[in-house]
Amino acid sequence: YASGTLQQRKPPGVPTIVVSRRWGVRPRGRRAFRTASCSFQEVMLTSERYRVQRLPFSHLSDRDVDFFEGIMPGRVITNPEELKPFNVDWLKSVRGCSKLMLKPQTTAEVSQVLRYCHERNLAVNPQGGNTGLVGGSVPVFDEIILSTVLMNRIISFDKVSGILVCQAGCILEKLNEYLEEQGFIMPLDLGAKGSCHIGGNVATNAGGLRLLRYGSLRGTVLGLEVVLADGSALDCLASLRKDNTGYDLKQLFIGSEGTLGVITAVSILCPQKPKAVNLAFLGCQSFAKVLETFTTCRAMLGEILSAYEFMDEKCMELVEKHLKLSSPVAGSPFYVLIETSGSSSTHDEEKLNNFLERVMTSGLVTDGTVATDDKKIKTLWSLRERITEALTHDGYVYKYDISLPVGKLYDLVTDTRARLGHSAKNVVGYGHLGDGNLHLNITADSYSHSLLDAIEPFVYEWTARYHGSISAEHGLGFKKKQFIQYSKPSEAVFLMQRFKAMLDPKGILNPYKMLPSGS
Amino acid sequence: YASGTLQQRKPPGVPTIVVSRRWGVRPRGRRAFRTASCSFQEVMLTSERYRVQRLPFSHLSDRDVDFFEGIMPGRVITNPEELKPFNVDWLKSVRGCSKLMLKPQTTAEVSQVLRYCHERNLAVNPQGGNTGLVGGSVPVFDEIILSTVLMNRIISFDKVSGILVCQAGCILEKLNEYLEEQGFIMPLDLGAKGSCHIGGNVATNAGGLRLLRYGSLRGTVLGLEVVLADGSALDCLASLRKDNTGYDLKQLFIGSEGTLGVITAVSILCPQKPKAVNLAFLGCQSFAKVLETFTTCRAMLGEILSAYEFMDEKCMELVEKHLKLSSPVAGSPFYVLIETSGSSSTHDEEKLNNFLERVMTSGLVTDGTVATDDKKIKTLWSLRERITEALTHDGYVYKYDISLPVGKLYDLVTDTRARLGHSAKNVVGYGHLGDGNLHLNITADSYSHSLLDAIEPFVYEWTARYHGSISAEHGLGFKKKQFIQYSKPSEAVFLMQRFKAMLDPKGILNPYKMLPSGS
Repeated sequence: YASGTLQQRKPPGVPTIVVSRRWGVRPRGRRAFRTASCSFQEVMLTSERYRVQRLPFSHLSDRDVDFFEGIMPGRVITNPEELKPFNVDWLKSVRGCSKLMLKPQTTAEVSQVLRYCHERNLAVNPQGGNTGLVGGSVPVFDEIILSTVLMNRIISFDKVSGILVCQAGCILEKLNEYLEEQGFIMPLDLGAKGSCHIGGNVATNAGGLRLLRYGSLRGTVLGLEVVLADGSALDCLASLRKDNTGYDLKQLFIGSEGTLGVITAVSILCPQKPKAVNLAFLGCQSFAKVLETFTTCRAMLGEILSAYEFMDEKCMELVEKHLKLSSPVAGSPFYVLIETSGSSSTHDEEKLNNFLERVMTSGLVTDGTVATDDKKIKTLWSLRERITEALTHDGYVYKYDISLPVGKLYDLVTDTRARLGHSAKNVVGYGHLGDGNLHLNITADSYSHSLLDAIEPFVYEWTARYHGSISAEHGLGFKKKQFIQYSKPSEAVFLMQRFKAMLDPKGILNPYKMLPSGS
Repeated sequence: YASGTLQQRKPPGVPTIVVSRRWGVRPRGRRAFRTASCSFQEVMLTSERYRVQRLPFSHLSDRDVDFFEGIMPGRVITNPEELKPFNVDWLKSVRGCSKLMLKPQTTAEVSQVLRYCHERNLAVNPQGGNTGLVGGSVPVFDEIILSTVLMNRIISFDKVSGILVCQAGCILEKLNEYLEEQGFIMPLDLGAKGSCHIGGNVATNAGGLRLLRYGSLRGTVLGLEVVLADGSALDCLASLRKDNTGYDLKQLFIGSEGTLGVITAVSILCPQKPKAVNLAFLGCQSFAKVLETFTTCRAMLGEILSAYEFMDEKCMELVEKHLKLSSPVAGSPFYVLIETSGSSSTHDEEKLNNFLERVMTSGLVTDGTVATDDKKIKTLWSLRERITEALTHDGYVYKYDISLPVGKLYDLVTDTRARLGHSAKNVVGYGHLGDGNLHLNITADSYSHSLLDAIEPFVYEWTARYHGSISAEHGLGFKKKQFIQYSKPSEAVFLMQRFKAMLDPKGILNPYKMLPSGS
């Protein structure tokens, strides 16, 4: 989850992985030019890690562009300058060389596009808000970018059931604002909410800040409309809380990162807007105390606990240094953000006060502040939410998004820090402790092979040793797909590949992503 | 959800659908005998609805039995008398003629069995507690019954994360008792808890009484171990709250009713045992008031609401008449059961009292009782939980498990009652109102073709008109599989059939179930 409303900005000293430097559409001819600049060699120049070769998809011709212009006049982008930001990921870590972006408005248009691409063997990169952190949302070579940016219509909202149905390109924050007016909220929230699309959230199975309370999208997404690789539309857009008629096909598309189909509409169950929200920002003297504070808090706050986030002092240093934020709580090695959401402010405050008294008197917490008004709550949240942003200011960022048993969560940070020593600028840990989800980030002045070699596969091996997941919520995208075996047995990966081959036999949907190549 | 600890009992005047009357294993010979008694004609005699013909699977030979006896000596059942209860469903509505039941203890044994059956082309009926209500848990012809009854080991429970890992044959109630000792509960609860197996619950995607609060199994099941049709084991038994490494394969097996693989172990996230539980049992004068009471209750009880169940006066008559239960609240056309679960009894009681005062003074509720002690809570719950059982005493039961927008929920009962008039004995409605889930049940002195014709497809068409689901939580099993198209478009059904063909190319796993035949 990148922060706030995202802006395309180049962090200092960050080399992008240039897959190709050549832009523009080749004038005529069926076979078009060989995109030599998109070749294996050039990727190697930037990073030996990303060994990737263009698959034998067709090359875009003028006739193709004409066809798309016929379907959606004025919504076919070929201008290289206009395309640039959609070829580069938010982290500026990967870059493709797509020569075409399409902006459909309807499911029928998406169907027409995919039917054509399927027949022509043209590769397609579905793209939402382009806020992904694993290089899954941008083309690797010259895939056509299929953007959901104009599919931003709310289809229906039912105030009795709390079920929202909308197109895939709706921006998360806008949906939340719309719902708040009706007394509801979205069941998910994340730093990139100002830019990310709900369709992209579902395709990534985004986690975020409310998962602890409202559960994962696998429970809250009630229906999906999806266009498959061959252009056929699959209508599973039910608005029912319970439906046991046949296999739950939509689940396969949740978290499939655009590799099995293009999500065009979403039906999602939204909780009521809590009447009372409180936030406590606390300092702890050790990670052991962070953990004990968590168990105490879970027992004492129970059903009103809606977030338990943690960050280490290095994170605090970075948001203070790079973003000029200031924290009312200082001087602790660890900070904890606890949010409660409930239906009675009196009850909630009483519960929170009882809890705070307990943890202060027992010495679990040494310092802290509490907020009940919206503005102070937002200010405190930003200390946690904007860490991602602060990190990009610190240099090149090596990002890891790990699930582990909570007891082991911070050991990975300590061990990585010890291993890397002075070769890294900063090694920081923060994340959704309540969900067992650590964000381990390592910064350096610039990208370096040898540092990456020191980190990988060390981090993955460490994670696998404790049966963790090498991607808790970010997905695998382009950058992590080769490491799937650290979290999944080969039989499972093989089965995934069979699903992919069944649903997308030509492999045109988001190629080079999620599943390991060459197996 | 059938009630309490289930007993195999024959309700009065209920004809079972006899698929075969011949039992026992044919002595020798490769092709064995043709099971003529399992033929199309005889099914027709009982019900023209269930037109089904045995598929060309192999017939069981003595050599097969010897092989299984070699794998699991003493756990191979061929005695017809012993097999009887496992060939008939709890409702006594369908009966198979399996000649063999196997009771593996380990995943390796399940693997060996399936590898052998796959090679020999022997059909297999996976069976848990045999409490299903759609004929999905018993053989249709002579499928081998693969029972999880001896796979009842708890593998691990982590008190920090609340994650339980256990074998598929653990009984739901036993698991809950085990967890309660540690301060936790299972995230699901249902009437059949005393008999049903967790593996069967997952295979059915059981809903039940706690879904409103803790969400569906799609969110709480964190991992599964599954043996596929060819005997290969698929280890997706993660114990992580978040894991986005590849497609979420386990979702395909949740709710697949044993047709894609045999679930052998489950990892599930368990909530903390609530410190305070309260129950209100209320009478309402109309269904409109039941609905308004629900919206009021959701707003005022918020996060502590853990169940909102309703039943009509006919249900109450039946539990009083057949089970001799007595209700402290009487004389209302509708009854509502509201449960709260929270971490503070003082707060919860205050919230509940405020709510009750509001609904009593506004006339939404005319009568009611509140329980806070365990015994009275159980007594009140049994009025609702034992309706299924009471119905079986009333005669032959036509069962429908429907999802609808809550506003339309009871109209289906009224319309069905009006349509059937005196040809039905009782037409009752009850269910999980908070989830939009209606149980519509029709009783008659005995089974009749003409009554069934009056009910079906009327009920399905009515449901489809309001975009409901013809199976909210029971699944499709054997009895509803032909009606899937009322809730799913043909492209979705076609895709399901492709998944089935991919994972079980010979179709040996729970044949004749879930997906429509002959398409």
